[in-house]
Amino acid sequence: MRNIKLILAYDGTAYHGYQRQANAAMTIQQVVEERLSPIFCQPIKLNGAARTDAGVHAYGQVVSFITTGTIPAERIAMAAKAVLPPDIVIVGASEEPMDFHARRSAQSKIYRYRILNTRPPNPFERNYTWHCIAKLDTALMHQAAQAVVGTHDFSAFRATGGAPVSPVRTMLSVSCREMGSAIIEFEFWGTGFLYHMVRNLVGTLVKVGQHRLTPADFAGILAGRDRRAAGMTAPPQGLFLVEVRY
Amino acid sequence: MRNIKLILAYDGTAYHGYQRQANAAMTIQQVVEERLSPIFCQPIKLNGAARTDAGVHAYGQVVSFITTGTIPAERIAMAAKAVLPPDIVIVGASEEPMDFHARRSAQSKIYRYRILNTRPPNPFERNYTWHCIAKLDTALMHQAAQAVVGTHDFSAFRATGGAPVSPVRTMLSVSCREMGSAIIEFEFWGTGFLYHMVRNLVGTLVKVGQHRLTPADFAGILAGRDRRAAGMTAPPQGLFLVEVRY
Repeated sequence: MRNIKLILAYDGTAYHGYQRQANAAMTIQQVVEERLSPIFCQPIKLNGAARTDAGVHAYGQVVSFITTGTIPAERIAMAAKAVLPPDIVIVGASEEPMDFHARRSAQSKIYRYRILNTRPPNPFERNYTWHCIAKLDTALMHQAAQAVVGTHDFSAFRATGGAPVSPVRTMLSVSCREMGSAIIEFEFWGTGFLYHMVRNLVGTLVKVGQHRLTPADFAGILAGRDRRAAGMTAPPQGLFLVEVRY
Repeated sequence: MRNIKLILAYDGTAYHGYQRQANAAMTIQQVVEERLSPIFCQPIKLNGAARTDAGVHAYGQVVSFITTGTIPAERIAMAAKAVLPPDIVIVGASEEPMDFHARRSAQSKIYRYRILNTRPPNPFERNYTWHCIAKLDTALMHQAAQAVVGTHDFSAFRATGGAPVSPVRTMLSVSCREMGSAIIEFEFWGTGFLYHMVRNLVGTLVKVGQHRLTPADFAGILAGRDRRAAGMTAPPQGLFLVEVRY
């Protein structure tokens, strides 16, 4: 028996999210399991480090699975390239100790959220950014976002109706920077994330960027733990799972 | 009567090229004419500065047309946004003298060709680059490419079976540079281009980058005017019409 770890990059535009669904909707997990099973001469069952929603992308999603398949780890990426659709790519493969588990062993994750901040839309960014026309104050969003660094009850930014897990999470760092070509990028590095947490944080921070909330208001929303006080859920296509650290 | 000039950016992935076709294939021209005609309260008939092939993109395609429609030029982009699909965007609109013609008035055009030069594919670049795995010598390609600057008979790089037009064209500048993330970009600025000329130049320059041709070989192919001596036609998805100058 071998324990295989894969690092996946995917364009989530065409998929109904990472996680396999009971209905016929096409998901990343289902496609990877079905296409890669022949390489291992047996059905494989992935566990994924993070669930990404429909339209959300990944540079470095991590999955692991147990198999008796004998293909050397260094040959998996090339073999997978021949069978996977071009919007899903294996960018790393390794054999791990049997106690490694993509989700349970993860120590921290990094998410990026990209905003296109110009009036005209950009056809090449339509699936990879949230298009915000109103000019955003990047420095003020960066300043406000620092309030979430540390260990906090993130109830104000959790999805309504999410699973009944503890709302306490630890954020290691947050940044908001202007990149070239009117792109603003948020980066969130944390030990764990609630469902929709990044998108809810961004939806609220954008109100700070528009000067509709102050950084103090934002900190007050976090402290208030009331989802209704926070902003909208930012749309999925701006979100990227960048890296999972172990 | 007014003469309207539009600047279009589009992701060509989903289209059968710019130019309207007799069969039912969806083209940029057809979609823009059909969706924008109601804004001008009459059918519009575009003339385009350049034909782009299926899968080829544009940051700055220029089209012009005559209309009696009265919408102010500065309102066209916003009105178009409501009716165009998200992969076609009007990034500029102006009223021009009646003798302006997008194609005939063009003085020069700039094309870019993008190559992804790494072993693993990149799901986000699959529709916007040519994926070349073998390591390419960017400096040598830049050096070799300088041979085409000036006025030359480009028969070696014209599509077989193209229209019987003069093969003489003037190239104002050519560059080949490494960008971040293993992207190589060619830029061609010329007064006119033959059908498939940029893609044929890139397909031959890549052989220089692989050290399968020397810069002197490349110059010899240009001078020899024999299409069979040149390399393959690079695939369409790496090509972008960047700008049309008047």
